[in-house]
Amino acid sequence: MNILGEFLGYLAGICTAVAFLPQSIETIKTKNVKGLSLATYLIYCTGILSWILYGAYLHSIQMIVFNAISLVFASIILYMIIRQK
Amino acid sequence: MNILGEFLGYLAGICTAVAFLPQSIETIKTKNVKGLSLATYLIYCTGILSWILYGAYLHSIQMIVFNAISLVFASIILYMIIRQK
Repeated sequence: MNILGEFLGYLAGICTAVAFLPQSIETIKTKNVKGLSLATYLIYCTGILSWILYGAYLHSIQMIVFNAISLVFASIILYMIIRQK
Repeated sequence: MNILGEFLGYLAGICTAVAFLPQSIETIKTKNVKGLSLATYLIYCTGILSWILYGAYLHSIQMIVFNAISLVFASIILYMIIRQK
């Protein structure tokens, strides 16, 4: 379970880190933010920022790095929503 | 820092757990999935599922519970995207 457990942690981190890359590319390309929820991205960015600070508190470099990547993409989408709405 | 650190962990967990509630409500109401990225929600759901399993590996009830809530909302959005596209 050790290797599987560690693998799951990395898989989880990588997935949630890059998940909002396609969404940010699509939003930049189409400039269509009609279907996107402002509240969702506001809460999500607050949450991700808190994960980074909590990661710093736990001295977890993985939590800091993966969530920082996630925050970049989520912030791009949030910025696009605020600009367009 | 102890109380602040623990507070950050709960704030982070609650935020990312409920972040996709407004998005799922908006998507159910408007049925507008045009601006939503299928790839994002596929990767995100895979990531959240991995966080749940990783949480089980770490015996972290918070990771399991918060991510399970998040998975419910993200899955609703994913289902709506697949059904509409």
